[in-house]
Amino acid sequence: MAIKNNGTEVVIDGKVIKLSGYESEEYLQKVASYINGKINEYNRMDSFKRQPADMQSILLQLNIADDYFKTKAQLEEVQAELEAKDTEMYDIKHELIAAQIKLESREKQIKNYQKELGKQ
Amino acid sequence: MAIKNNGTEVVIDGKVIKLSGYESEEYLQKVASYINGKINEYNRMDSFKRQPADMQSILLQLNIADDYFKTKAQLEEVQAELEAKDTEMYDIKHELIAAQIKLESREKQIKNYQKELGKQ
Repeated sequence: MAIKNNGTEVVIDGKVIKLSGYESEEYLQKVASYINGKINEYNRMDSFKRQPADMQSILLQLNIADDYFKTKAQLEEVQAELEAKDTEMYDIKHELIAAQIKLESREKQIKNYQKELGKQ
Repeated sequence: MAIKNNGTEVVIDGKVIKLSGYESEEYLQKVASYINGKINEYNRMDSFKRQPADMQSILLQLNIADDYFKTKAQLEEVQAELEAKDTEMYDIKHELIAAQIKLESREKQIKNYQKELGKQ
């Protein structure tokens, strides 16, 4: 994302910013609205409002980065779960194939016995 | 995360900040180092350096929020994949059980035929 004169207009913290990039207008508005939500949330706290502007913006950056790292950790967890499930699936598929092969051989055996017994 | 006098010290954009919260020192340092990485990356761009300080901090917030939303989208994708895999697993487990029941019944049938044929 970069500031461009002919970009998509978003309003963050009351400031109009024109952003360029390959992102859709919808996406940029979603991101802007998320940041404004953070700003509104923080502005309700006296301890935040007492901070100088540069501290406020670092705190906001820290908070957004916290959301990022929390989501990243969740992603890694779910990816590990998916991998474990893949291994389990592989084993069960093998078990299924083994059972199907066994079943086929038993059915052949049954046909042979039926022949012997004159049941066919 | 909040600024506290007795918190963990991190350095962001050359400023020492004491952070409190339930997060580990290691986690806070990781988040701080990620933000400093962004700042260094952006400071190498003239188009960024030309912006006033408030615009610079909004751009950093946008960039971090972009990482967050990208990771969130990935998380949703992997979660959907996991759900699909769960459904597939459920079906294969059912198929396996059905095959095992069939196999058991065939084996009983074989034993009966073997008895009839005097093979036991």
